[in-house]
Formats: sequence, structure tokens, C-alpha cells
Amino acid sequence: MTGEQKGIVLVTGGAGYIGSHTVVSLLEAGYSVVALDNFTNSVNSNKNDSVALKRVETITGKPITFYRCDLLDKDAVEAIFKAHKIESVIHFAALKAVGESMTNPLLYYKNNMIGMINLLEVMDSHGIYKMVFSSSCTVYGEPERLPITEENPTGNVTNVYGRTKYFIEEMLKDAVRADAKWNIIALRYFNPVGAHKSGMIGEDPTKQFTNLMPYISQVAIGKKDVLTIFGNDYNTPDGTGVRDYVHVMDLATGHVAALNKLDREHLGLKMYNLGTGKGISVMELIQTFERVNKVKIPYVIQERRAGDISAMYANATLAETELGWKAVHTVDEMCEDFWRWQQMNPNGYKGEHMNGHH
Amino acid sequence: MTGEQKGIVLVTGGAGYIGSHTVVSLLEAGYSVVALDNFTNSVNSNKNDSVALKRVETITGKPITFYRCDLLDKDAVEAIFKAHKIESVIHFAALKAVGESMTNPLLYYKNNMIGMINLLEVMDSHGIYKMVFSSSCTVYGEPERLPITEENPTGNVTNVYGRTKYFIEEMLKDAVRADAKWNIIALRYFNPVGAHKSGMIGEDPTKQFTNLMPYISQVAIGKKDVLTIFGNDYNTPDGTGVRDYVHVMDLATGHVAALNKLDREHLGLKMYNLGTGKGISVMELIQTFERVNKVKIPYVIQERRAGDISAMYANATLAETELGWKAVHTVDEMCEDFWRWQQMNPNGYKGEHMNGHH
Repeated sequence: MTGEQKGIVLVTGGAGYIGSHTVVSLLEAGYSVVALDNFTNSVNSNKNDSVALKRVETITGKPITFYRCDLLDKDAVEAIFKAHKIESVIHFAALKAVGESMTNPLLYYKNNMIGMINLLEVMDSHGIYKMVFSSSCTVYGEPERLPITEENPTGNVTNVYGRTKYFIEEMLKDAVRADAKWNIIALRYFNPVGAHKSGMIGEDPTKQFTNLMPYISQVAIGKKDVLTIFGNDYNTPDGTGVRDYVHVMDLATGHVAALNKLDREHLGLKMYNLGTGKGISVMELIQTFERVNKVKIPYVIQERRAGDISAMYANATLAETELGWKAVHTVDEMCEDFWRWQQMNPNGYKGEHMNGHH
Repeated sequence: MTGEQKGIVLVTGGAGYIGSHTVVSLLEAGYSVVALDNFTNSVNSNKNDSVALKRVETITGKPITFYRCDLLDKDAVEAIFKAHKIESVIHFAALKAVGESMTNPLLYYKNNMIGMINLLEVMDSHGIYKMVFSSSCTVYGEPERLPITEENPTGNVTNVYGRTKYFIEEMLKDAVRADAKWNIIALRYFNPVGAHKSGMIGEDPTKQFTNLMPYISQVAIGKKDVLTIFGNDYNTPDGTGVRDYVHVMDLATGHVAALNKLDREHLGLKMYNLGTGKGISVMELIQTFERVNKVKIPYVIQERRAGDISAMYANATLAETELGWKAVHTVDEMCEDFWRWQQMNPNGYKGEHMNGHH
């Protein structure tokens, strides 16, 4: 115990991509962590342990209490709250595959909304009201103007996954209006990329994914032949889509900053963008990846995809002013760190999962 | 069995106000009815029977199969689908008290959304895709122009109850987009009033209610001293709020018309307003009630309530054109019929409920 020792944080979805990186930052900031995950998105289970979180223990030299648990099992959640003096919750756990959300919408509504409702109900019954929630820039739909501030209208969402985030934000507004005890920050992430500098943890997509950086990386390592770019005739500098890529370790410190804010102040409900504020095109990201990692990424151009937005990047000044947070990692680092993770773990966590050693 | 015998309809919330009246019309139209209710809104339970539905059996001379069942208990719903060859579903069951929805939003989201999701999942697993869903004109929020057509934007809803209806409509759009087998009509009710001509069934509000006609009626019968009118300075002909009151037996035949439409055609998802198309002011409704029922309704004027809309009435031509449905009952009948029910049942279903005889 050092002087800076802080309280116990429950991290739902703690074995996932952003979850595991955030646990690193929480432990380094002096928080204790109880994590839960149902391993739906994260194939890093080793029986009831998480390979990713075991590695986080190695990185940080600190222990993590882990539960294999589904938020739809309210009794199991209740038991975790009974067993630990949890002071706040960071809620990552959710289904997140956009394509799957379109083909199986009821599963997404049920899982994401009831997961949240169960969690809020159990928190309320234990007198715990501080939460940081994983929202997404998808709640904005097609932006009115760029960069996007938190004032941009929400709700005109183009996919079911994003609609579950929007519905939950609206539900949180109602919950806070009904009970002023709640103290919640919803973080609207832009496009998380990169990995921890150690290369020990990173993104290990289990479902069909269309995210750009894992795709680039799998082409670079030879798992896919060629990268498909959807549209090069957008109204952007080089014609390819523009996004706000943000290093996952910046997101991680963003969660710690949000938690610190909730420890200091009563906000009710507040939304913050987490992005760099800079738009990067698909072509720029590819060229940066090639340059810093000295690899070649063959690509083909195809038609635009229905529902894709030409350009999207954050105005991130509110998080800077109010949370004292700013993204510090460069695009070069995003590409280097992701590639280190990919090379050190060509099959993600799978090898270790299969062997069962850690 | 007559030649016009139709299939089995499951009516959720069948013991409720609109549910019980709709069961009358369904039975008269030749449908067989399996009804379920959890009696949350309807204090007409007699152990596991519904007093209201027993009276519907008396009115129609036809039997109803009834289950005391909560839609959140998916296994119980599953068992009902296993026990009967259900062909379509009319889904009324929901929490509906606007005030309570504001103080307990999570309960409303959980109950109304999960009730619907469970029902859709069980229907899907039994290959049943025809549903009529109880939506509400509240999904429109403050109308852009009057009368309101189905094209009016939805989503800017002023209360949680209405937001659950809006969320469910959006969820249904996603479900139908994902699976073209669904064949669903959402009926957006305006303001249901009146009662069955027999006076045997009617509205028996269990929660704190603010609906105008039960209020008028309880003043007339001496259960309340005085009627409170919220605002007489609206931009309407007499300054009081204007609504589209529609007789509950017209709503009942609207559901039968919707079901007939689904039996004939595959629509995917379609929304219809159910209203008369005529706006009636609070003052007009009071004066009509006094005139036709020869009673006196003392009233006081108070400030407008926050969130109340000045005027709201339907353009109901789409239902007329496509469902062949039109409201036929007059405002006089709405007042006469409600008053007959109130006089014959001064304590609603309660007396019978307490004695347990029916």
C-alpha cells in the first residue's frame, strides 16, 4: 500500500481490448481492480482466467481479481458486489460487432441494454453511483459539422450497435433525472487503435471485423492477401475516408481521468469525446504503417459501403478542459505499437489459450 | 364452429383496458383468444382468473383461455406457445403510467423492452411472425403540424413511457430489416376513452392516473371533489388543451382490422394512427359529459403542466385507406358509455375481486 492507494473499481468487459489496457492504467494510478468478462468478445479465456489480464498483472506487477461473469446473470453480479467493497464501475462489457448487430438486432438490444440495467440496479442496491460508461462517436451519426463537439445532435445512428449506445445514453439521462445520486461519465470514443508498448496485450478480434488497423496488420503479417479500401472518391484531401484514430493507451488514461473527476465532483451525467481532434485518412494510415514498420500493404479500391461517413473527427477540448486529459500518442506510435503486438502474437491470445499456460 | 372461424390470437395484457375490449371484438370477429396478463396494471385478478375476461366471456358467450404470466418469464411464455397453435399476437402488455415512468425509468425500460424482446424471440422460435403492437401518439412528441400523419418525425418524446414505445418501434424497424419474415403493425393510439356498451368492462386505473375521463367520472360520482384543469391559456379555441379522444371499442375494431390486414398481406412493419381525426378540448369534453349524463363537474384552473402539449390530433386517413377502419363512435357515446361503466362499477372491478365471485 502506498499513500496514493485508491478504491476498488469494478471493470466490466475487463478482458477486452480497451478494458485490459484501461486496467493497466488503473493499477498504475493506484486503483484496485475487480474485473469481470463473459469472454464473448475476448478469446483469451483460460478456463476461468483471462490471459490478457494475467499479462496485465505481469506488466504492472499488481494483482487483479477476475470473475468470469455475464451481466445478464444479475445474481452473479450481485455476488461480486457482495464480495468486494466496490466504489465505482467502468462499464465496457457489450456486444460491439456492427455487422452482427444488423443481422441479430434483438440480441444486441437485449444484451447491451439489460447488461446496463442490471448493473445500475445492483449498483443502486449497494449505494454505488459512480460509473464511467463506454459510449461511442457512432451516436452522432452523420455529423452536422466538423470537428464534432459533444453538442452535435445524437440519435440519427446508422447501425444497431450504435443505436444501443444511443439508447443507453438516453436511458442514463432518464436515470439521472429520476435520481440525482448518480454520477456518470459517458465517454464517446472515436477510433481506438494501437496497443500497449510492451506488445503483451492488444486487439484480438474474435468476430468478423472491418476495423482498419487490424486489417492492415493482418495483410502485413500475411494472414490476408490484400487490403480493401471502400471508396476513394469522398470529399476529403485524398478521397479516402477520414477518421480520428486514438491510441488505446490514451483511451486508458482517459478513463482514469474520468474516474478522478467523479471522485472529485458530482456531475450527474456528462458526455466527453475521447479523440485526438485530428482527422487521418485511410491512405495516410496505410502509408504511416508502411513507413514506420517497413512493410508493404497491397490494397484494392472498391465502391463506397452503404452507411459509411466521409469524415469524422472530434473536437476534444471539453475533455482537455474538464478532465485534464489529452491524447499524447502519435499516429507513428499507433502503427508501431499495433505492429509490435501483432508480431509478438501472430495468432492473438489464441496460442496461449490453446496451450493453457500463462 | 361457424364458417368464419379464424385462428388463435395471443393477446398479451389481455386483462387490461384496451386488451379486454379488443378481446370482445376478436371473439365477435371469429378469432379464438389465448390471453395473458401479469395483473400489474389490472386489479381484476381473482386468483389466476381475470374478472374482466370472465365478463368478456359473458358478453360474447365465448370462452377465453387465460394465463397469469409475466413476459419477463420467458420460459412461461414459451410454455404457452407450446400449448396452443398460436397464429398471431396482439401485444398490449406494458407499464404505462407516465408519472411512474419518470421516477422509475429503469423499471420501464427493462419491463417494456424485454417483454417485447422475449415475445419476439419466442414467436421466432415457433415460426410466428404476425404481430399487432400497441404504440402511442406520444412517440411524436410536440407535433410539427396538425393533424399528425404517420410521417411526423418521432423520437423527441417528453416522457420515459413514450420513450419505451419509441425505442420499441426503432427496435422493430431493425428486426424487420434483419428478417423479412416479420409482419408487424404498430398502432399509434391517440386518447382512448369510453367503455363497452354493456357497462360490464371499462377502465379501472390502478396507479395514480391523470387521464381526463376517469378523473371527470370520479368527480361526477363523488370520489373526488373537483376536477383540475391544467392551463386555459393555450393557443386553442377555448384555451384548454386539445386531444383526439377515441372510443375504446373503435380501438378494439382497429386491432381486428390490423390483424385482418396481416392475414391478407405481408407488410414488414407499418405504423398507423388510430384516432378520430378531430380535436376536442378539455372544456368540450367536460361540457359533453355534463350534458349527456346530466351531472355537474366542478373544476378549478391551474397552471399549465411542464411537458404538456397544447393540441394533438390525428390524421387517420391512412388507417381508413389501408385498414378499412374508421372511428365511428361519437364524443356523446364516449361520455355515456364511460359513465355507465362507472355507475355500474363505482369501485371498478374491485368489489368483485374482493368477494371473489364472478
